[in-house]
Amino acid sequence: MDQRQSIGRATVVQSNRGGGGVGRFTMGASASFYMSWCVCINVGLLCVVMVVFWNWRWRGGFAWDGSEAQFSWHPVLMISGLLVLYGFAAVLFRVPWGWSQKKIAWKLVHAGLMLAALVLATVGLYAVFNVHSTLNIPSMYSLHSWVGMSAVVTFAWQWFLGLVGFLLPCSAQRLSHYLKGIHVWTGQAVLLLSLAACISGINEQLFFALDGVSANAYSSLPAEALFANMLGILIVAFSSLVFGILSKADWRRPNANTNDEAAPILLREEAT
Amino acid sequence: MDQRQSIGRATVVQSNRGGGGVGRFTMGASASFYMSWCVCINVGLLCVVMVVFWNWRWRGGFAWDGSEAQFSWHPVLMISGLLVLYGFAAVLFRVPWGWSQKKIAWKLVHAGLMLAALVLATVGLYAVFNVHSTLNIPSMYSLHSWVGMSAVVTFAWQWFLGLVGFLLPCSAQRLSHYLKGIHVWTGQAVLLLSLAACISGINEQLFFALDGVSANAYSSLPAEALFANMLGILIVAFSSLVFGILSKADWRRPNANTNDEAAPILLREEAT
Repeated sequence: MDQRQSIGRATVVQSNRGGGGVGRFTMGASASFYMSWCVCINVGLLCVVMVVFWNWRWRGGFAWDGSEAQFSWHPVLMISGLLVLYGFAAVLFRVPWGWSQKKIAWKLVHAGLMLAALVLATVGLYAVFNVHSTLNIPSMYSLHSWVGMSAVVTFAWQWFLGLVGFLLPCSAQRLSHYLKGIHVWTGQAVLLLSLAACISGINEQLFFALDGVSANAYSSLPAEALFANMLGILIVAFSSLVFGILSKADWRRPNANTNDEAAPILLREEAT
Repeated sequence: MDQRQSIGRATVVQSNRGGGGVGRFTMGASASFYMSWCVCINVGLLCVVMVVFWNWRWRGGFAWDGSEAQFSWHPVLMISGLLVLYGFAAVLFRVPWGWSQKKIAWKLVHAGLMLAALVLATVGLYAVFNVHSTLNIPSMYSLHSWVGMSAVVTFAWQWFLGLVGFLLPCSAQRLSHYLKGIHVWTGQAVLLLSLAACISGINEQLFFALDGVSANAYSSLPAEALFANMLGILIVAFSSLVFGILSKADWRRPNANTNDEAAPILLREEAT
């Protein structure tokens, strides 16, 4: 039988599994969290660096003139905003350092980071629609575009409902309580959509760009293909780290010492 | 403060959140689990039906002769095995009906379903390699192929380590305990890899097949494109349902009444 008791700021877990009683603080869990968080942040930042380098080195760099160089902003902003910054904001409430501080401050940081991620993603969408419009390329037909658009639209709704349900002073507690489970579920769905959009997008872009005419064929695995494929694998690794951190029961923010039903809970399980 | 106590077969959750004491059984949680599980199973089966119909209706049907009709087995077997059957096996331990039964039986069903999923995925891989070899098409260069191969290889290792760590009579309890967290983490990673591989694969296949020469261009959104894009969205929905079920704390198998450290735990959190 496991019993969790919150004593002041420290959570004690007493386990009688296997017949032996074990009492311990969550300091071990905290250390393993910080290690995983550190890896997660570094892998996320490496994804951003790699997508910038890919587009700078092989895709004509960056511009905002309706040319293909403007297209470069699309993968950079989507991976930076919709995936990496979103992932960082999603695991924010797992940081034990913040558990003893006022929840409202962390809610605001969480909402702020999510808003920044949403703005980056929206600009990233605008970049590609604008290029397509200028160069007369059709939009919104590929599965990649459907999944990506679903990610951004779901994310926008998620942010708006999060604001109404958990942040505004007028948020009704009954609504907040009802929204909790939906907020957790939708938050995960956005991350899954983002991951699927990023991988299918990189794959599609490499098939378009490495066509064997304007550049070496993708199938001959030139340096760009190897580099961007590795970026793709790293993106899955980052998503896996975020999901791993979110799903670990030991790393959840304790629910004790709060009457705050409107606490933002993308990051922890509904305690009902 | 939340306290969970296992009394016989029923789990009681006593919650003092918000100052009001509430004692309740998990019957409500059980009903909502069965509803979500039912939706999950139906969406998964619909994915299988749709990928079969797509390849039967528009991709030349099925054969095993090294032709493009053999290629049809690839998406069917990967989506059926690596995603849908894998997802079904992953949520198996959440079924409350099984909590009162012998864990070893469910461990065997879980391992059996996972083995079936692995066999389907392996045959699905063989199908595409064989077609590529016959038609002299290069393999293993696209990000889709890298992600898909990572999924199958990681899955194979996961299954083997699961067998050694949790099922064999000689499995050391210390090894099982150590493997638990890794098993949960890797299990999620395989599902993320599968999702990314399926979406990027469908996207890639549609660009190849709907080339505007042998078929209407993808960009003109013919019926096949609409159908396969909807399949892609449904695949994300299925993955989202599986992750939603796995992450819900209320739906985890209670850890009480067991000294069985070697219980398979892809499906529940490490209780350390």
